[in-house]
Amino acid sequence: MNKWAIFHRTYSEYSFATAPDRVVLRLRTALNDLDACYVCYGDRMDRNDPISITRRQMQVRQQDGLFDYYEIAFDPGVTRLCYYFELHCAGERLYYYNDGFFTEPDANRQLYYNFHYIRREDMAAVPAWLKEAVIYQIYPDSFADAPAHISGRAGAIERNGIKYYTQNGGTLAGIRGNLDYLQNLGINCLYLTPIFAADSWHKYDTADYLEIDPCFGDKKEFAELVQACHAKGIKVILDGVFNHCGPNFFAFRDVVLHGEKSPYRDWFFVKNFPLQRGEHPNYECFAYYDFMPKLNTGNPEVIAYLQNVACYWLKEFDIDGWRLDVANEIDHPFWQKFRQAVKAVKKDAVLLAEIWDDARSFLGFDQFDSAMNYNLTFAITDAWAERKINAEQFADRVSYLLMRYPEAVQQGQMNLFDSHDIPRFLSRVSGDRDKFKSAVLFLLTHVGAPMIFCGDEKGVCGWTEKEYRRPMPWNTVDVDLENFYRQAIKLRRRYLPQILAAYRIYTRDKETFTYGAADNNHGFVVLVNMSGEVQERTVDFSSVLPAAGGKITEYFTDLPLPREIPATRLKLSVRPWSCRIFGN
Amino acid sequence: MNKWAIFHRTYSEYSFATAPDRVVLRLRTALNDLDACYVCYGDRMDRNDPISITRRQMQVRQQDGLFDYYEIAFDPGVTRLCYYFELHCAGERLYYYNDGFFTEPDANRQLYYNFHYIRREDMAAVPAWLKEAVIYQIYPDSFADAPAHISGRAGAIERNGIKYYTQNGGTLAGIRGNLDYLQNLGINCLYLTPIFAADSWHKYDTADYLEIDPCFGDKKEFAELVQACHAKGIKVILDGVFNHCGPNFFAFRDVVLHGEKSPYRDWFFVKNFPLQRGEHPNYECFAYYDFMPKLNTGNPEVIAYLQNVACYWLKEFDIDGWRLDVANEIDHPFWQKFRQAVKAVKKDAVLLAEIWDDARSFLGFDQFDSAMNYNLTFAITDAWAERKINAEQFADRVSYLLMRYPEAVQQGQMNLFDSHDIPRFLSRVSGDRDKFKSAVLFLLTHVGAPMIFCGDEKGVCGWTEKEYRRPMPWNTVDVDLENFYRQAIKLRRRYLPQILAAYRIYTRDKETFTYGAADNNHGFVVLVNMSGEVQERTVDFSSVLPAAGGKITEYFTDLPLPREIPATRLKLSVRPWSCRIFGN
Repeated sequence: MNKWAIFHRTYSEYSFATAPDRVVLRLRTALNDLDACYVCYGDRMDRNDPISITRRQMQVRQQDGLFDYYEIAFDPGVTRLCYYFELHCAGERLYYYNDGFFTEPDANRQLYYNFHYIRREDMAAVPAWLKEAVIYQIYPDSFADAPAHISGRAGAIERNGIKYYTQNGGTLAGIRGNLDYLQNLGINCLYLTPIFAADSWHKYDTADYLEIDPCFGDKKEFAELVQACHAKGIKVILDGVFNHCGPNFFAFRDVVLHGEKSPYRDWFFVKNFPLQRGEHPNYECFAYYDFMPKLNTGNPEVIAYLQNVACYWLKEFDIDGWRLDVANEIDHPFWQKFRQAVKAVKKDAVLLAEIWDDARSFLGFDQFDSAMNYNLTFAITDAWAERKINAEQFADRVSYLLMRYPEAVQQGQMNLFDSHDIPRFLSRVSGDRDKFKSAVLFLLTHVGAPMIFCGDEKGVCGWTEKEYRRPMPWNTVDVDLENFYRQAIKLRRRYLPQILAAYRIYTRDKETFTYGAADNNHGFVVLVNMSGEVQERTVDFSSVLPAAGGKITEYFTDLPLPREIPATRLKLSVRPWSCRIFGN
Repeated sequence: MNKWAIFHRTYSEYSFATAPDRVVLRLRTALNDLDACYVCYGDRMDRNDPISITRRQMQVRQQDGLFDYYEIAFDPGVTRLCYYFELHCAGERLYYYNDGFFTEPDANRQLYYNFHYIRREDMAAVPAWLKEAVIYQIYPDSFADAPAHISGRAGAIERNGIKYYTQNGGTLAGIRGNLDYLQNLGINCLYLTPIFAADSWHKYDTADYLEIDPCFGDKKEFAELVQACHAKGIKVILDGVFNHCGPNFFAFRDVVLHGEKSPYRDWFFVKNFPLQRGEHPNYECFAYYDFMPKLNTGNPEVIAYLQNVACYWLKEFDIDGWRLDVANEIDHPFWQKFRQAVKAVKKDAVLLAEIWDDARSFLGFDQFDSAMNYNLTFAITDAWAERKINAEQFADRVSYLLMRYPEAVQQGQMNLFDSHDIPRFLSRVSGDRDKFKSAVLFLLTHVGAPMIFCGDEKGVCGWTEKEYRRPMPWNTVDVDLENFYRQAIKLRRRYLPQILAAYRIYTRDKETFTYGAADNNHGFVVLVNMSGEVQERTVDFSSVLPAAGGKITEYFTDLPLPREIPATRLKLSVRPWSCRIFGN
């Protein structure tokens, strides 16, 4: 047995509950190492000694290049659970608990792993609607100023001596004027990058967290936008930039003006006075930009101020959540308190962190419901665009990522390959629409809430910030791509229960992989070709789809008409960088 | 390279800061597998691309039977740190980041590990005094009613229709009357099991959290006790039983009386009404005891009530911390809020959890400062008493435990081998005083705050609850043992800086192990014999003690006189189940 590979950890993605009667346990082992893996559990408070033990077999849920991930979900029947693992390998039988290996389970139950008490408060309470969301990200300045229209005109509006800039003229009313378009696409959630009063066109340098940017409109128009969205079943998430503010935020202006005598001096991290701006500011900033001073989120006054901001927009405008900018550079206690404040106002408001890497320490019951899943983004671009990894390596990476978070957290991840912060994926794949579409399909059939960046559906390209944030090309109607998105979103809705419950990667090799999900009645399977040549693979439908002897539909063959396949085992040919999807 | 063994995790015991200019990183590898291990780091916000990288070699800090634990502590010079590991093994060189192996570091710094922002709020703020504490646990009913005296008389006091029981007649005034004795022993912290009004003699079934149990005294006497302790530099920790209450707690009485019409019905987990007591209560309890109904710590009213209790004793009586009973069965959000409330009143109040196993999810910046380190207890009893593990396995277990928590959390662990909840260690080792003393010495030279259970120093034995909680034998004066404790505590104080900074296990074999700690000026080394035969081992003092060519003192040889050893390398003989300790 490869003992070095064995891994388990309580209160983590390896041990969590999703309901009082559903505990999920995972154990990592070396790839294909064990013959069998069991969990043995009992009531830690069992009045009998020795404790009465129930044994259940675990199944491999995911595999990557090094590891098997065994998993079991079960109703333990007790509130205080203790457990150990029984590992079978080549005639050897070992017991694993207390992070150690034993030939027999100890009589002392205190040494076993513990699920001390199954409490709702400890469960990741990811709002259900997020798991069903298809999110559309809008960069307000670039989106629209009227139905299917944007002026593209730069300009500025002056208010109280501050100039607010626009590059392309987008407005909140413009978003409202295009809700039919968005609804028709099939999305059910909008994520707007910042809309509060801020100098720059990107609005990440907030001047006033309690006002709408005058370039975008006013509070009345924002209220109308939210109401119109809600009438169409569309949720609205705003962008909260609480790591730093802009140069015209009142507190920073006061510090600039009064120096160390300012009552707001401890709202920032000023190393010494007098304050020095320019290329080498003597105060902490976002990156090293002097116009984005970092807020001291350890200061109770700042904590209270920002909580009030968050709650104001929830209470007064009924928004559905916050995407929190640069969340990773703010301390964990701030987010714990922030969540308490936000959830007290609106229980199913979503808190979504901008964190580009492993966000485990920020996600779960006490801080964020979700994070921007850039690790998936990088895997997708490494595979489809950069060709740094092959199909097998990509499938390994995806499997690893699926096991990195507890179930509910994974189901609420914001999955993306485009945003206002990275080059357009269509540029990255050199405009190859087959590549683009198979990546879109992957994203839209994956576990987690997919996000579409405005313009993706119209084939917008761009490598530089100005390019990928360019105005929405309303004059372009990309029937093919828009239809593809529409159909892919429909497909996601059709198979969402299976995706959430039973997503699997079935096969992987250097050129292809197959994945899908199925329950007893319905399922789908996708064969992806990640090579420049046509590939042929035999798919055994009987092992991946229920009732596979019956009718199976192939999607996207002669789009939009489905083709039916009555076989259970079929040799399939896939075009280069393309995929085929079947379901029932 | 054994890739399965490699482990790192951000925001965990593998990656933490102890000060703005001190980051500690750890990497786990297979035992003796690597030739060298480096961390390569830079400023995540570096304006240059590629980022400028600094490389530093890591050292093996601990080893267990399977793994090496590499560690480095350094000043990164930046607030936003990204890093990857460079691993050398048998001519192979691999880079490790994003939980994956690479032949070259990626150009995309976003893929590296991140220490997103070094913030004080994210650091485990374990009060400094806890790291220096030698704790004495008092079971108040059994300790004293006067200087060096306890009546041993059982009885009861009735107040407002409730009977409060005593078994042995101990009082708060009795504790105060023996502070000279305790101070003379060398302890500097008292942990009192519950002193609040409660029916049973153990007082874990609280009737009134805001009153002193009448058997023990009153608030005036408690105030005097705390003042007298503080005057002698002794801290006072109380026992908070917030997982459950007793049958006479006002809220539970109200539910018993008014059933589902009680305004306190949601203070408990009642499955259905009418309430049913007896052997199978229809409400959640501690274990299945109907007289210990579990409190609903998810209920905001209960949260506020218990926070108020905790703060009341801090504010009004200036206590120094809380040991929290059955902390593991209470949800994490409760403790997060509890910490916020307590630390707002007294910043260096200690919060110490009764958790018998891996407490990682409860410890750190946001919940507890410390936990009762029963995993160490079990290792000690398995080795010294049960002989289930040999010296090598014991040393492996200790090494593993030392790496299980971040540094500050480890330094604040409450280390014990006796408490009011387990048989006396002297009984477990069948009264063998050599075994007992070498275990005491181990405990008192280990990283973490050692706890002595009242009577340990007088050789109290006992297997059953009644026996090990027996009255303090004031008539017994165990000169040998009391002196030993006194000297061992002095030794701990002498070498505390080295223990905290540089504790190491140097050698291990089936019968013996050596451990110790040293800085550039002072250090100590202990050779432990964990076998029934005399053992001879050569200790190379030059590699474990500074200036070893100079004077080295042997402690405890002809106690209390030290013997000096001028050699650097010495063959030493150790008696069975005994140890020898040298220092300079």
